[in-house]
Amino acid sequence: MTSYQDFDDHIAQINDLCCVINLLNWDARTQMPAGGNETRGRQMGTVARLAQELFASDQTARLLDSVEAEIAGEDSGSYRVRAVRQAREAYELSRRVPVKLVAELNTLKSVAQQYWDEAKESNDFDHFAPSLERIMEMTRQVAHYIGYQDHPYDALLLRYEPGMTAARLKKIFSELKETILPILERAAAQGDPRLDFLDRDYPEEGQRAFSLEVASEFGYDLNRGRLDRSAHPFEISFTRNDVRITTRYNRRFLPQALFGTLHECGHAIYEQNVDPALTGTALTTDLLDLYAVGGVSYGTHESQSRLWENLVGRSYGFWQVHYPRLKHVFPSQLADASLEEFYRAINRVHPSPIRTEADEVTYNLHIMLRVEIEMALMEDKLAVKDLPEVWNEKTRAYLGIIPPDNKRGVLQDIHWSAGLVGSFPTYTIGNIMSAQWYTAAQRDLPEMDAALEQGNYAPLFGWLRDHVYRYGRTFSASELLQRATGSDLNSERYRAYLSKKYGELFPE
Amino acid sequence: MTSYQDFDDHIAQINDLCCVINLLNWDARTQMPAGGNETRGRQMGTVARLAQELFASDQTARLLDSVEAEIAGEDSGSYRVRAVRQAREAYELSRRVPVKLVAELNTLKSVAQQYWDEAKESNDFDHFAPSLERIMEMTRQVAHYIGYQDHPYDALLLRYEPGMTAARLKKIFSELKETILPILERAAAQGDPRLDFLDRDYPEEGQRAFSLEVASEFGYDLNRGRLDRSAHPFEISFTRNDVRITTRYNRRFLPQALFGTLHECGHAIYEQNVDPALTGTALTTDLLDLYAVGGVSYGTHESQSRLWENLVGRSYGFWQVHYPRLKHVFPSQLADASLEEFYRAINRVHPSPIRTEADEVTYNLHIMLRVEIEMALMEDKLAVKDLPEVWNEKTRAYLGIIPPDNKRGVLQDIHWSAGLVGSFPTYTIGNIMSAQWYTAAQRDLPEMDAALEQGNYAPLFGWLRDHVYRYGRTFSASELLQRATGSDLNSERYRAYLSKKYGELFPE
Repeated sequence: MTSYQDFDDHIAQINDLCCVINLLNWDARTQMPAGGNETRGRQMGTVARLAQELFASDQTARLLDSVEAEIAGEDSGSYRVRAVRQAREAYELSRRVPVKLVAELNTLKSVAQQYWDEAKESNDFDHFAPSLERIMEMTRQVAHYIGYQDHPYDALLLRYEPGMTAARLKKIFSELKETILPILERAAAQGDPRLDFLDRDYPEEGQRAFSLEVASEFGYDLNRGRLDRSAHPFEISFTRNDVRITTRYNRRFLPQALFGTLHECGHAIYEQNVDPALTGTALTTDLLDLYAVGGVSYGTHESQSRLWENLVGRSYGFWQVHYPRLKHVFPSQLADASLEEFYRAINRVHPSPIRTEADEVTYNLHIMLRVEIEMALMEDKLAVKDLPEVWNEKTRAYLGIIPPDNKRGVLQDIHWSAGLVGSFPTYTIGNIMSAQWYTAAQRDLPEMDAALEQGNYAPLFGWLRDHVYRYGRTFSASELLQRATGSDLNSERYRAYLSKKYGELFPE
Repeated sequence: MTSYQDFDDHIAQINDLCCVINLLNWDARTQMPAGGNETRGRQMGTVARLAQELFASDQTARLLDSVEAEIAGEDSGSYRVRAVRQAREAYELSRRVPVKLVAELNTLKSVAQQYWDEAKESNDFDHFAPSLERIMEMTRQVAHYIGYQDHPYDALLLRYEPGMTAARLKKIFSELKETILPILERAAAQGDPRLDFLDRDYPEEGQRAFSLEVASEFGYDLNRGRLDRSAHPFEISFTRNDVRITTRYNRRFLPQALFGTLHECGHAIYEQNVDPALTGTALTTDLLDLYAVGGVSYGTHESQSRLWENLVGRSYGFWQVHYPRLKHVFPSQLADASLEEFYRAINRVHPSPIRTEADEVTYNLHIMLRVEIEMALMEDKLAVKDLPEVWNEKTRAYLGIIPPDNKRGVLQDIHWSAGLVGSFPTYTIGNIMSAQWYTAAQRDLPEMDAALEQGNYAPLFGWLRDHVYRYGRTFSASELLQRATGSDLNSERYRAYLSKKYGELFPE
């Protein structure tokens, strides 16, 4: 047996455990009877600890040493070389932060999430503030141990979007604002389109059937996937052979389940189309977080959900093909709504306090205000006690509105209570990337636009599979972008997309 | 920390992994998309191997040594003493069989199951014979390593029904035959009751709702359980807090899902009512098979499924209460069937070649013929090549019929291809025990019969919980029986039950 085989088997075991954790998680969120909660937590903890012990073991160190000797001189782009490099980087990075600090943070997180839950319920920020303060303090320590050159936020970004920095984000955000704020102004001035027909009785069965049909047409393989119901929609995979999505239904608001399903379907298509040769390897495992995932970064993953949900699913061309079919499913509900009216309704631009309910344009403003706050917290330039005020002030500045209360303001997102600081920017990075992939595919495939207008998603799907999906975690997001589009992350294409689409919807 | 806490934590980890394997199994059989099959097998293999390594480790040996010193002198019936004893016995027993033989048998089993599947499909015994021969040869070796005094079958019974022996089984079987064969003769002579109304259109939703309603009344807690659909019905648990059952529906045959659900519900009620203090301990883990289960033996478990399915669910008193409700669910289907006719139809006694479709009475004959064959195979008194002939001859002798082909004969059950030799008797042991529990509860609870006739299952449920369920694997089946009923396994009560019930249905 070669060293590489030993290494690969070792990682495959860890990947198996990560897939198992994902299944325990999926089951808990979609199938488990309520009573199972307590013991399920313990079961997940045991498997996570075993995965952690396996990866942090001396065996990993020995295997890395010997496999590095074995593959020295191989092509630096080969799966083997990349797999070893990823594992080495994750191994070294995970050793920088003291085990004790990680354990303390994990304990704190479970407590903090409960305080956050209660605080949100009772609209009482002070109830959550002490644990949030501790989380931010410990997160600053984590950043310190990981190390950074310019900004503590850079250290945190490593986990979600390697290569991204606070400085680059600031530049990107200021570019985006120049495009987005004028659209928002024009949309506000021109008023809302007709929306009444979205709020009618849409039986769940029809919503589900239509969404799944579209997901299948996009390329989601139901022989290796399924759609369930959950409180918060998500996508999760246990290798490319079993990639599941969930959604939630609102019988009185058609867009929720429909676009939610297409969003998760975009994530799922990515996972399902990683090269089968990478199954169970370091190139389908986030070894730093011990999470089974084929997508290379949070932003890249989000670029696929956004691309299929927004660039395809909210486009006029898509609805030219599908609106007659949607009317066939909901004939009475949509009888008096024209294609044009439907298109305008699902692309309404309207400032609202809640991020997850925001439209395609204002969504990015929700991200910016969070990221600015996170950066200030990491620099110790902002105290937790001042958060509600700062949050409201920034919401007013960006969106022109003030949240009616803290639960629809500073308490709305679970992220901070879960110790996720530095992940918010990846939503906007995903938006930006989605337009880069889309325009590169257009450039490479002259027939793509005509195909899309016929409801034929195969050319776009094939391009994404060949340039993004199949590589799994082989190349970094930045490498993928450069190989496929010729440039690194760049907001130009996304801004051009927004300007064109919303320029037509809200002309000057 | 005491030794006992260390020991308990160690076992709890193993129990967690066993529960996880159960969940992976449940998901594979009820939810998993077909494409997930390949990688799921690997994931289950990894978790099973980790559980195996944990239990077979030197750490287990060290913990056992020190905890045995710590608890020396404690009450021999205490949970602690019993947990340590169970773990020690499983540990020593598992070390008797060479690791290499276990591994070889496991490999063979997965191959053999495929051959069996194909052989059954094509009705070709010879296709399965070579691997079956190997399985029987290796099973004889396993019996040899485990060791036995009188009969190699005794060694195999240890795994399913500790304390049972070939000699005791032979005696029990001959007693049962004396009761069963005359019933069968009379039933054959008197002819079938009306059956036409069972074969009508019974929509699945109504079958499911009615079965679940009854299951809840029996005591199945849906806050810690759920009912799904699967090819073969089963019950499985991930601690007492999450105990799931499955069934299969036949739209043209009402009894299948109904009694199938009540059967699995009986298993589930057992698991759900183990003392919470035993959760995650050696007393809710089959450490020999590394299977998370609260029931103490296969026979004891089966006694509960049989008790709720047959002694309660097929009784006249039960249908006096529930038949009006069933007619309410299926008014047109049952319009022309009286309570008396319905009761006779669901208690039809009729020899058929398939065990799983057999009635309450002839079921035991199916078991006897299998057990006689297994004993002869283990003694090397019967060659695998002669199995089809012997099978058919025994079926004729016991049931008066000859299977139309091997797939409805010697190839009908999965057990042998799965390496399960010695488990069949536990079905009949379960039948026998069910009557022992039932009559002991009647003896202890003068109000029980009247309550049952009102559809009040609380007294019976409470007695079973207090005398059987709560102990988990604390006491052996034999100890439980003696404590609760005053005698060991004894066919008298069961024979009296059969004689009375079927004496009324088929009078002399």
